[in-house]
Amino acid sequence: MGLKAGVVGAAGFAGIELVRLLLRHPEFELTVVTSDAWAGTPVSAMYPAFAGVTDLSFCSNANANLAECDVVFLAVPHTAALAVAPGLLEQGVSVVDLSADFRLSDPDQYRKWYKTPHTAPELLKQRAFGLPELFAEDLKTLADRRKEGQAVLVGCAGCYPTATSLAAAPAIRAGLVDSEGVVVVDAVSGVTGAGKKATERTHFCFANENLEAYGVATHRHTPEISQILGLGERLVFTPHLAPLNRGLLSTVTMPLDPNAPAPSQEELDQIYEDFYRDSPLVHFAKGVQPKTGSVAGTDRAQVGAVVHQAAKMIVATGAIDNLGKGSAGQAVQCANIICGLDEACGLDLIACAI
Amino acid sequence: MGLKAGVVGAAGFAGIELVRLLLRHPEFELTVVTSDAWAGTPVSAMYPAFAGVTDLSFCSNANANLAECDVVFLAVPHTAALAVAPGLLEQGVSVVDLSADFRLSDPDQYRKWYKTPHTAPELLKQRAFGLPELFAEDLKTLADRRKEGQAVLVGCAGCYPTATSLAAAPAIRAGLVDSEGVVVVDAVSGVTGAGKKATERTHFCFANENLEAYGVATHRHTPEISQILGLGERLVFTPHLAPLNRGLLSTVTMPLDPNAPAPSQEELDQIYEDFYRDSPLVHFAKGVQPKTGSVAGTDRAQVGAVVHQAAKMIVATGAIDNLGKGSAGQAVQCANIICGLDEACGLDLIACAI
Amino acid sequence: MGLKAGVVGAAGFAGIELVRLLLRHPEFELTVVTSDAWAGTPVSAMYPAFAGVTDLSFCSNANANLAECDVVFLAVPHTAALAVAPGLLEQGVSVVDLSADFRLSDPDQYRKWYKTPHTAPELLKQRAFGLPELFAEDLKTLADRRKEGQAVLVGCAGCYPTATSLAAAPAIRAGLVDSEGVVVVDAVSGVTGAGKKATERTHFCFANENLEAYGVATHRHTPEISQILGLGERLVFTPHLAPLNRGLLSTVTMPLDPNAPAPSQEELDQIYEDFYRDSPLVHFAKGVQPKTGSVAGTDRAQVGAVVHQAAKMIVATGAIDNLGKGSAGQAVQCANIICGLDEACGLDLIACAI
Amino acid sequence: MGLKAGVVGAAGFAGIELVRLLLRHPEFELTVVTSDAWAGTPVSAMYPAFAGVTDLSFCSNANANLAECDVVFLAVPHTAALAVAPGLLEQGVSVVDLSADFRLSDPDQYRKWYKTPHTAPELLKQRAFGLPELFAEDLKTLADRRKEGQAVLVGCAGCYPTATSLAAAPAIRAGLVDSEGVVVVDAVSGVTGAGKKATERTHFCFANENLEAYGVATHRHTPEISQILGLGERLVFTPHLAPLNRGLLSTVTMPLDPNAPAPSQEELDQIYEDFYRDSPLVHFAKGVQPKTGSVAGTDRAQVGAVVHQAAKMIVATGAIDNLGKGSAGQAVQCANIICGLDEACGLDLIACAI
Repeated sequence: MGLKAGVVGAAGFAGIELVRLLLRHPEFELTVVTSDAWAGTPVSAMYPAFAGVTDLSFCSNANANLAECDVVFLAVPHTAALAVAPGLLEQGVSVVDLSADFRLSDPDQYRKWYKTPHTAPELLKQRAFGLPELFAEDLKTLADRRKEGQAVLVGCAGCYPTATSLAAAPAIRAGLVDSEGVVVVDAVSGVTGAGKKATERTHFCFANENLEAYGVATHRHTPEISQILGLGERLVFTPHLAPLNRGLLSTVTMPLDPNAPAPSQEELDQIYEDFYRDSPLVHFAKGVQPKTGSVAGTDRAQVGAVVHQAAKMIVATGAIDNLGKGSAGQAVQCANIICGLDEACGLDLIACAI
Repeated sequence: MGLKAGVVGAAGFAGIELVRLLLRHPEFELTVVTSDAWAGTPVSAMYPAFAGVTDLSFCSNANANLAECDVVFLAVPHTAALAVAPGLLEQGVSVVDLSADFRLSDPDQYRKWYKTPHTAPELLKQRAFGLPELFAEDLKTLADRRKEGQAVLVGCAGCYPTATSLAAAPAIRAGLVDSEGVVVVDAVSGVTGAGKKATERTHFCFANENLEAYGVATHRHTPEISQILGLGERLVFTPHLAPLNRGLLSTVTMPLDPNAPAPSQEELDQIYEDFYRDSPLVHFAKGVQPKTGSVAGTDRAQVGAVVHQAAKMIVATGAIDNLGKGSAGQAVQCANIICGLDEACGLDLIACAI
Repeated sequence: MGLKAGVVGAAGFAGIELVRLLLRHPEFELTVVTSDAWAGTPVSAMYPAFAGVTDLSFCSNANANLAECDVVFLAVPHTAALAVAPGLLEQGVSVVDLSADFRLSDPDQYRKWYKTPHTAPELLKQRAFGLPELFAEDLKTLADRRKEGQAVLVGCAGCYPTATSLAAAPAIRAGLVDSEGVVVVDAVSGVTGAGKKATERTHFCFANENLEAYGVATHRHTPEISQILGLGERLVFTPHLAPLNRGLLSTVTMPLDPNAPAPSQEELDQIYEDFYRDSPLVHFAKGVQPKTGSVAGTDRAQVGAVVHQAAKMIVATGAIDNLGKGSAGQAVQCANIICGLDEACGLDLIACAI
Repeated sequence: MGLKAGVVGAAGFAGIELVRLLLRHPEFELTVVTSDAWAGTPVSAMYPAFAGVTDLSFCSNANANLAECDVVFLAVPHTAALAVAPGLLEQGVSVVDLSADFRLSDPDQYRKWYKTPHTAPELLKQRAFGLPELFAEDLKTLADRRKEGQAVLVGCAGCYPTATSLAAAPAIRAGLVDSEGVVVVDAVSGVTGAGKKATERTHFCFANENLEAYGVATHRHTPEISQILGLGERLVFTPHLAPLNRGLLSTVTMPLDPNAPAPSQEELDQIYEDFYRDSPLVHFAKGVQPKTGSVAGTDRAQVGAVVHQAAKMIVATGAIDNLGKGSAGQAVQCANIICGLDEACGLDLIACAI
C-alpha cells in the first residue's frame, strides 16, 4: 500500500467505479474522494453498495488534500480536467484523466469538436494516450519518467473508442484494411454510458424496452476513433442506446485491401490471437462472438473478427463494460503501468457468469 | 365481419401476435388457430393475456377446417409453409405466409441459404412480396386477382429486411447511393425475435444485461435484404441481440454516389418525407432518431436519415416491433390489401408512450 | 362521437395514457390536452409514439377550453385537482379525477395523510369512488344524475388500492376474514408508478437490477385501502419497486375468521368466480397465479386466491397495469359508466402475450 | 493456498458462482469442477466470463478426484447430495452442501415436503446449518471437529430462508414478536433463482416486464424458514418472481407481543444494530430500506426494520443476492469458518454501485 490515490469527481458513475476498484486494490490506498455537490456526505449514504465497506466521505475540491497523493484520477466533465491537471502536475502529482481533455493530440480538433479552446496544448505532447493494449510504449515511457521523479499525465481513451479500437486495430495494423475505404462503426451502449444525471434519456421508463441511435454523424468520439486508427475522414460512427446498465458492444465493418488477397478466416484468427496473446485483460474469442455480459463489472474486453468474403470486408466486434475497460478499469490499468505495477494489478475481477 | 381467417402455427410468437390482432380486427373473424403441440389447449391457458378475452382453443392441423377460411396465415418454420401453402391455394384459400419460404424470388438462392430445395418454384412467380410500402403494386395486383375469384399468395418480408429496407429504400430509389459501394447494415433485435423455444440464448439470465452479435456474415436475411434493395453481394448484414422483448432497430450506412453532388440534409429530408407521405403506418421523423419503444406492440414503423458529409455516406435508421411491422402486423396489413380493405384496417394501435 | 373529452395534466404518465386511450375511443372525442410546462408542444414531439397518429398539441391550462367538454379527466398532483374540480363542475362539466383529492371520504383523513386541509369537503359527499367492480351502484347513481343534466365527480381509486381491493374484496365481503385480524399487503410496482420526473429513483441505472421496499408504514395509499375494505387500523401496507415499466402485483394475506370453518379451496374459488362473473375487465384465474405481463397496456385485472390451511389465512393476489386499471384505464371505465356507455367501451385492448 | 476445493454440479448457476468465488479465493485452490452433462467442456466455453481467466474443464462425477479435496461443495439438486455426501465424509472430505438435503433437522419434515425419504438421518444430527450470522456456534463446533481431523458437513440455508431470517431474527430473538401470531413473508427473487434450465418460466420474453407470485402456500422453503425462526405453523410464505438476474428481497411482517409495550423505532434500531455489529457481511441500514442492487454479485446482506405502530407490527426487510449470500457466497463463508479462516475471506467483493 505504498501509493496514495485520490479521485476527483468521485460521485459520478466513472468516479464511483474508481472508488470500487481502488478500495480493493492491493497497492493503492484511496485517501481522498471529492465531490463539490456531495461534500460531507459519506460515500455509503449516496451509494449503499459501500455500506459496511468504507467510511470515506466525499470532500469538496477546495478542501481535498490532493497534493499528498501519488496519483489522482480525474473523473470530471471535459474542461474541468483542463482546469485541474496542470496544477496537480506542478505539485508533482501524476494524473490519470478520464475526461476528453487529453485524448485528442491536436488541440484544433479539440476546439472543433468540443467548441472551446484547449488551454494546455503543451501537455498534449507529454501525455500518453491511455489505451494500454495499443499504446503500451507510451505508457511505459511515462513509467520511466515517473520513476525518475516526474509527475506524468495519462489521457484515457473513451468507452466507444476503446471497444472499437480493440476490435479494429489488429486488422488495421496488419495492413489488411483498404487505406482508401470507409470504416463503419455501429456501437451499442448500456445506460450507465449516459451518466448519472437524471434526464428523460436516463429515465427507466424511456430507456427500458427501447433501442435508438443518437449523435448520428456528430458524436465526439468520432475524432478519437479516427486518431487511434489513423482513419482521417474515412469513418462513420453511430452510437446506440440499449436497455442494460453496463456493457458496450462495437461492431466495426472494414473494407479489405483490394490490392491484396483476402485473408482466410484462419489467417485472421491467427493475427488476432497473436495480437492479444500477451494482453491479460483482452481475450480474442476465435469462432465466438463476444458478449458484454461476460465482461460486465470488470476491466476485461472480448474481441471477435470474421472475414466477410462475399462483400470483401472484415466484421470485428469488441465487448467491454463501458465503466470498466471503457472508463474506470482502464484508468486503473494505466495507473498501474505508470506506477510500475503489473497492468492487471487489482483488476482480477471475474464477471458474473449469469 | 365477412372474412374468415385462420392461423396455422398460432402458438408461436408470430402466431399468437396474429391472434391478438385478428381478435380485434373489424373485418376478419378468427375462426381457427392451429398448433399440433398444443391441440386442445385453450389459447388463454397458454397465454393468459387472453383470459377473459377469447374461448378459442388450439386445434391440430389435421383437424383444422382451413378450407372455409378466406385467408390463412402461416406462422410456421420454413419448409412447413412449402408443405401447406399449395394445398390451401388449390382449395381456394388465400395464403399470407410469414415464413421464409416465399420471400426469395430465386429458388436457387433459397436452396443456397436454407440448404433445402424449393418445392414450389412456380408459386414464387405468382406470389407478391409482402412489404406494402415498397411493393404496393404487386399486392394490389393480388387484390385484383382475388376479387376475380383466385386464391393468392403473399410471402411476407422478414423482420430485419423490413426495418432495413424501410430505412434504405427512399435513398436508394432516389438514386443517391453508389451502385458500386457496399451497404453496411447493423441491426439490433429484442428477444422475441429469437422465438418461443426456451434455449440458452432466450434464457432471461443470459439475455438480460447482455449485448452480442450473431450470425455474422451468415444470417439468412442477407439475400432477402439484397433482393429488396438490389444490392447483389454489396451488403454486410450483422444482427445483434439486446435485452428487450419487442423492438428492432436497423442502422444502414450507404455510400453516396461519388458521381453526383451530395444531397443536403434538407434535400434528404424532403425525399424521405415524400416517400412516406401517403403511408399510414410509416413515419419519417425529420431531425429525430426513431425509437423502437414508440412502435412496440403496433404495426407502425419510424424512419430517420442523416447525411454524413465528411464520410460521404447516408446513415438511415428504421425502428419497428419485430413481431408487429416485422411479422404479424405486416401480415395483417398485407391481408387487408389483398382483401380490398384499407391497409391499416385493425392496425390502429398506438404504442404505450411509456 | 357525441362526447367531448379533455385531459388536464396530459404530459404526465397517467395523462398521456389517457390520451392514448381516448384517441382510440369510439364515443369520446379528445378535444383538449393541457400542460402548462409543455404548452404549444405537439404531443408527438414529446411522446413520439404519437407521431403520425395525432396532431394535437398541449395547451396551457389558462387557454384550455374545458367548458365545452362533456368530461374532463384530471391527471394532476394532489391539491391541484381540488383547485380545478369545483369550477369545472360549476360550469357543468363532469370530472373524473385521477389524483388523490377525492378518494378519501373523510376530509380529516385527507388532512392527516396529505398534510393539507381539504378545501371542498362538500364535494366528497357527492362524488363516487372510482373502482367500478366494487362501487358499481355509486357510479350508476352518478350516471343517473348526469342524465338529468348534473355535472358529476368521480374520485378514481389509486393503483395500489385497486389491485389490493380487487384481490381482497371477494373474501372480505363474503365474511371469510377475521374482523379483528390484521391484513398484510405487500405490493410490487413497475417504475411508471414513480412518475415522469427524472430522479435518482427513476434513473434506469438505479432502478434496473434492483428491488426495494419504500414508504414502509407511511404510504398514502394506506388509508385508501383501509377505507375500501373497512379495515380501520388493521392494515400493514408495504409497497415495493421492481425493474419493469408497467405492472403492479398486490399480495394480500388475510386471516380467516376463527369462529367459522375455514373454506375449502373449491369454496373460495366459487366465491371469487361468482364475484367477477359479470365483470368484463377482471378475471379470476382459478388455480393460476395472475401475471402483470398478461394485463400490461390494458384496463384488465387478474385475480388469484389461495386458502393457506396451515396458517388459517387467505393469500389473494391482484395483477394490474398501474397506468391501466390502476389509473388511466380505470378513469375511462368510470367515464364510460357515468356517460351511460358500456363500461368496457374503448377498453378492448389485449395485452401483448409476449 | 493450502486448501483444495472441489465443486460438484459446477455447471449450474450456484455451481458456476462457486467457481467464480473460489478462483479468486486466497486460501482455497479450486482443483476439480464436475458436471456429468458437460464433462470435457472447458468452463470458459460454456461460460465465456471465464475466457482468459481459467483453463479448468468440467469433468464427470465418476472421474472426479474429490478425495484429494479438503472441502467439496455440492451444488446439486436435492436427493443428489444425499447420494454423494456420506461417501465423501467417509473419505475424510468435508462437505458444504447447497442443496436442500441437509437443511431440515427433522427427516419427517424432509419426507413431507420433498416427497422422498431422508436416507441419512444420522448426518442431520452432526451437520451444522449454514447461516453463520444466526448459527455461529454450530459452525465453530464443526471447525473444532475438523481441526481434530474429522470431516464435517454443512447444510447451507436456502436463499429465501437466508434473507427472511436475517431480517426477522433480531426482532424474534429479542422477544418482541407475539409467540401466538402469524408471520407473513412476501419475498421477491430475480430469475437466477429459477435455475439454469431453459423453461417457459425462465424465457426472457415471459419473465421480462412481468411480476407474479408462485408456489403460494406450498413452497419448500416454508418449513426451513419456520425451523430457523421457530414459528411452527405460524408462517405464510409467498415467493414472487421479478425481472432481474440477481437479487432477493424479503419483507417480513411480524406481530408485536401484545403483552409488552411496543418498542420505539429507536429501540428497534438499537436491537438490530447490536445484532449485526460484529457481522462483516450483514449491514443494518438504520432509516434506510435495503436495496438488492447494493449487494448483487457479493456475499453481503442488508437489513432494515420499521415499527408499524398503528397495526402493532414490525416490518423487517432483507436484501441479498440469491446466488451470493443466498447460495454460493454463503457456502464459501461457511467453508471459511469450518476451515478456521476469517468468515469473510475471499468475500470482499463490492457490488457495482450502478
